[in-house]
Amino acid sequence: MRRTEFEVDESSNPEEIASFMEEMSFGFLGTVTPEGAPAMTPLNFVYVNGKVYFHGSRIGEKMTQLKANERVAFMAAKEYAIIPSYFSDPLMACPATAYFKSVRLDGRAVVVDDPAEKAAALEALMRKLQPEGGYKTIDAADPDYIPRLKGVAVVRIDADRVSGKFKFGQNLKQPARESITGQLAERDAPLDAETIALMNRYCPHAGGATGD
Amino acid sequence: MRRTEFEVDESSNPEEIASFMEEMSFGFLGTVTPEGAPAMTPLNFVYVNGKVYFHGSRIGEKMTQLKANERVAFMAAKEYAIIPSYFSDPLMACPATAYFKSVRLDGRAVVVDDPAEKAAALEALMRKLQPEGGYKTIDAADPDYIPRLKGVAVVRIDADRVSGKFKFGQNLKQPARESITGQLAERDAPLDAETIALMNRYCPHAGGATGD
Repeated sequence: MRRTEFEVDESSNPEEIASFMEEMSFGFLGTVTPEGAPAMTPLNFVYVNGKVYFHGSRIGEKMTQLKANERVAFMAAKEYAIIPSYFSDPLMACPATAYFKSVRLDGRAVVVDDPAEKAAALEALMRKLQPEGGYKTIDAADPDYIPRLKGVAVVRIDADRVSGKFKFGQNLKQPARESITGQLAERDAPLDAETIALMNRYCPHAGGATGD
Repeated sequence: MRRTEFEVDESSNPEEIASFMEEMSFGFLGTVTPEGAPAMTPLNFVYVNGKVYFHGSRIGEKMTQLKANERVAFMAAKEYAIIPSYFSDPLMACPATAYFKSVRLDGRAVVVDDPAEKAAALEALMRKLQPEGGYKTIDAADPDYIPRLKGVAVVRIDADRVSGKFKFGQNLKQPARESITGQLAERDAPLDAETIALMNRYCPHAGGATGD
């Protein structure tokens, strides 16, 4: 069942999605093999203007697969809190759930040949994953980088659709929601305070980002 | 390029894989849509005897898709450390990498109809995600649970192949490896000590689990 109250999308919430994708260091590329079976690969990536970039070996299995079938999905997800059943039911296990954010792109993989775009993508990836610096800026005109840029494959995902599911108890009525936030505050696991903030932010009764 | 030194598989390392899958609270289901496009869904799961179980709505999009095409992939992955380029090169960005574990199942999704198997799978999921208890054991003969078990869909993935990639610098020569472990010890980010232990454990020169 599609529960539209959990959904965010690139057109209405571009900043929420971009901010989450900047926070996530890796995601999963979904492809389809020539035999029609699904395949998945974990990848470091950078999200720039609604597009995902990643890099890899030019001669690997992944490139062979992408050349055979350019249709891809890409997903990053983070779990914030396991919500135990006893937060809302003293007996039955059924209410146990998890609060999370996930963002998914559906689109096409394009192998990037332009050295300037390759360099810009790899530089954006470095700034994301190594923000403290400590390396020479990646520049397509730099003689030290020219052969390295030729030797690496950079892939861009052009998305037909960017969508997200941010699940933070948006379906709960106010008293149940307050009961959960109270018990999360008491539990105080590492991400619980952040989870409470996100429950408040995305609460449909509070005019949050996904509740307008 | 397949780098066999990073690979583990269910036949040679069943305990390494089972232990990792027990630690991971969620993973990603990869499916293929009727149009031949890849699709991905984040899911809480439990791994029992080489099989993945998950649950969901009986009438959702996911079930419709699985009935149309039972071929699935399932992956869980955890990133342990970003290894900055300057750990091994003072100038070039190229050596930047990440150490991680990933496990992937390729197989077929089977909708579980037997109430006893459904109950056992959901109970295993609860013990994993809510080990502190606080709920009545899920039992197919319990009148409180009988209607709930009917109302939920449980899916089992029967794997043709379970494989893993545990990347912890196995390709490094001993001096380079010791330089990385030394700098991780100095950096001391949250997972760095664990990363050093895993680098030692999986080191092919040290007779580790994947290096025999």
